[in-house]
Amino acid sequence: MEFSSHQLEAAETLLQVGRFLVIFIAARAIAELLVRLQLPTILGELVAGVLIGASGLHLIVPPDARVELSGVFSGLVASLTEITPEAVRHIYDETFPSLQAVSQLGLYSLLFLTGLESELDELVAVGGQATTVAITGVVLPFVLGTAGLHYLFHVPLIPAVFAGAAMTATSIGITASVFGELRWLKRREGQIVIGAAVLDDILGIVILAVVVAIVGGGAFSVGPLLKLCLAAVAFVVVALVLSRTAAPLFDSVVDRLKAPGDVAVASFVVLTLCCFAAQAIGLEAALGAFAAGLILSASKHTEDIDKAVKPLVALFATVFFVLIGTAMDLSVLNPFNPANREGLIVAAFLLVVAIAGKVAAGWSYLSKEPTSRLVVGLGMMPRGEVGLIFLGLGSQARILTPALEAAILLMVIGTTFLAPILLRVVIPSESEPATAEASQPSL
Amino acid sequence: MEFSSHQLEAAETLLQVGRFLVIFIAARAIAELLVRLQLPTILGELVAGVLIGASGLHLIVPPDARVELSGVFSGLVASLTEITPEAVRHIYDETFPSLQAVSQLGLYSLLFLTGLESELDELVAVGGQATTVAITGVVLPFVLGTAGLHYLFHVPLIPAVFAGAAMTATSIGITASVFGELRWLKRREGQIVIGAAVLDDILGIVILAVVVAIVGGGAFSVGPLLKLCLAAVAFVVVALVLSRTAAPLFDSVVDRLKAPGDVAVASFVVLTLCCFAAQAIGLEAALGAFAAGLILSASKHTEDIDKAVKPLVALFATVFFVLIGTAMDLSVLNPFNPANREGLIVAAFLLVVAIAGKVAAGWSYLSKEPTSRLVVGLGMMPRGEVGLIFLGLGSQARILTPALEAAILLMVIGTTFLAPILLRVVIPSESEPATAEASQPSL
Repeated sequence: MEFSSHQLEAAETLLQVGRFLVIFIAARAIAELLVRLQLPTILGELVAGVLIGASGLHLIVPPDARVELSGVFSGLVASLTEITPEAVRHIYDETFPSLQAVSQLGLYSLLFLTGLESELDELVAVGGQATTVAITGVVLPFVLGTAGLHYLFHVPLIPAVFAGAAMTATSIGITASVFGELRWLKRREGQIVIGAAVLDDILGIVILAVVVAIVGGGAFSVGPLLKLCLAAVAFVVVALVLSRTAAPLFDSVVDRLKAPGDVAVASFVVLTLCCFAAQAIGLEAALGAFAAGLILSASKHTEDIDKAVKPLVALFATVFFVLIGTAMDLSVLNPFNPANREGLIVAAFLLVVAIAGKVAAGWSYLSKEPTSRLVVGLGMMPRGEVGLIFLGLGSQARILTPALEAAILLMVIGTTFLAPILLRVVIPSESEPATAEASQPSL
Repeated sequence: MEFSSHQLEAAETLLQVGRFLVIFIAARAIAELLVRLQLPTILGELVAGVLIGASGLHLIVPPDARVELSGVFSGLVASLTEITPEAVRHIYDETFPSLQAVSQLGLYSLLFLTGLESELDELVAVGGQATTVAITGVVLPFVLGTAGLHYLFHVPLIPAVFAGAAMTATSIGITASVFGELRWLKRREGQIVIGAAVLDDILGIVILAVVVAIVGGGAFSVGPLLKLCLAAVAFVVVALVLSRTAAPLFDSVVDRLKAPGDVAVASFVVLTLCCFAAQAIGLEAALGAFAAGLILSASKHTEDIDKAVKPLVALFATVFFVLIGTAMDLSVLNPFNPANREGLIVAAFLLVVAIAGKVAAGWSYLSKEPTSRLVVGLGMMPRGEVGLIFLGLGSQARILTPALEAAILLMVIGTTFLAPILLRVVIPSESEPATAEASQPSL
């Protein structure tokens, strides 16, 4: 059936706007509930995502989740625009990438803000400790996970290596969000965790390249890998050098700008430039966003930049975390389904290794000053989107059995949901009254 | 050729981030130039769009513009990700809608801010005047344009009606942006123009429905049209009633919210709700965004809302205006191409009618207080995106000749570019020193 472009555009707008509406109402409602239980709001955003997503009301369903869109939503839009529900579903799927693009903007903004609020000197001071935490936190889960799967559960080597690799990288977004909200970002523990999360993200990308090369076929060449490692080192060095030197240049440019919105646009140029550079050398754009924030953290305009970025974080990082929740398929959790049992047992093993490996990393560094090693270890725990990326690659390459896929998903879900809860339990609530009364949101 | 999902995602990120980078650098550079010439920055954003768009460097090319993507851009991304330039172009086109979605967010944010900064009492006080200006500014260009094309240029009736209709609606976005930057938004003239632009947008939608029905085939029924008119009236009434009553409710909800980012998210919920409602009853989502701002203008949190929305406007409304510029095909302006001459002559006629009709509307209202009627008339002049929507519909339905298409495009380009320039000339620069020194951007 043919519909006029006017009808199709109306349906598109209704879907785009309606999705935002559903996401914000759900995220806000659950976040308000969790704040009263003294839990971080990010947990609320994830739970909201699950509730409205593929495992819940089917209001926000990523096209690759392969579940029906809620009839309430598609029916409403269909009746308002007088096109068929099938056409609505088609437009829904077609326009979903723009929601994901907005959520990416949210992730970049969050990491930019995290870099901006980081203390560069503190970050450099904890550099050695962060490196130790990162390496331990990558090696332990990878080795224990791969070996355990292969020898205890008789999983073939390649899928076992893949599952082990999926446990390596901490989700810097979730960690940054929790530490930011609990106001521990500028503490020594916060800086160690952020530094280590950035480093293990880089390590994760290198591991990913290796694993993809192994899976992709025997012809494993050292050249590209060496290039990637060099790029990673160059990235860290250049980011550190620029964060010492580039801020005055930025300030002098901004001071000369006269058109309105100068600070917001100028910092966005730096942000997108760093994202482009990071992606161009084979790293993740999100790492570039963090570096951009770090570079501008020495600017005299940080306060204005902060004000410009915070609304983007409040709005679009919420979309990012809700979308992570919507993609999670919780039906694999049902123990009454016999098909799930194998996955659940493997999942329990992976979850224990994933938690123990990262928590143990908290005890791996030397420190003269007293720091809470448990906070560092728990901070490294959430795998979030990075684990999901591995899962997506593995299931796309058809190297994972359904049980192993479910187990990796459960490991990601478990670490992602447990980390904010456990951190909240461990971190004393000294700043409680101040937070509740503060009119200025922390994120 | 097959590429790994990793390569494709890298290309996607590079394109998405790279487009933002190009847009912001170009827009900022030209805007800075124009601010020094005391011209509004929106003009710079449009010019930047032309420079990097389909008529310029081909860096930002909307997929429907059917021009080649710049080899520099696609070649760079292709060599960085090791996929073919053809694949890059394919991803470019596929991901372009998310840039447009972000630009729509910018338009909604701008109109939301315009509503928020409007003085409701002033807007109601000028309601009668705004209505007169809106009706005159719709009727004059429509009647003169249609009649002139039909009788002077012997254009058949249906395309003539279509071209006339394309001249009716003022671009509220451009007008709001110019008045905001010149700090005339809260003056009587600004409020008349904003009120009239909102009303003639509503009239434009009704006219569009009529024209589409006529073009679509003989069976023209009064029912849907009546429904649309009723919806339009209901929308204005409900928006006015809510703007008197809903703000205290909003305030009491926000006061009870405790999770971070409360004001930003709560106002975004109102914004998306109003956009959805407006689109649901057959009006434009952008009108809902203006109504949402108006409703919250009586809130005691307006200052916080303002701070949360301004970065969105600075970033994404820029994308919106740049994209308008990129879609403009200035090659029809070349008088040395004989194929263009007919279009240029018709365009000159349409441009005169389009300007005269709206400027004359500035003299159509009664006022006891002295107001600058020329400012009102020029403020109503830019057609911008609304004219382009008509043009798109007409060319899609194949009812316009190439010459008439070019003429409508030139009318849109002419009014859009001339309005900010002429307004700047007419509005005295008394607030000049204050603007230059103010660290707080006006938008």
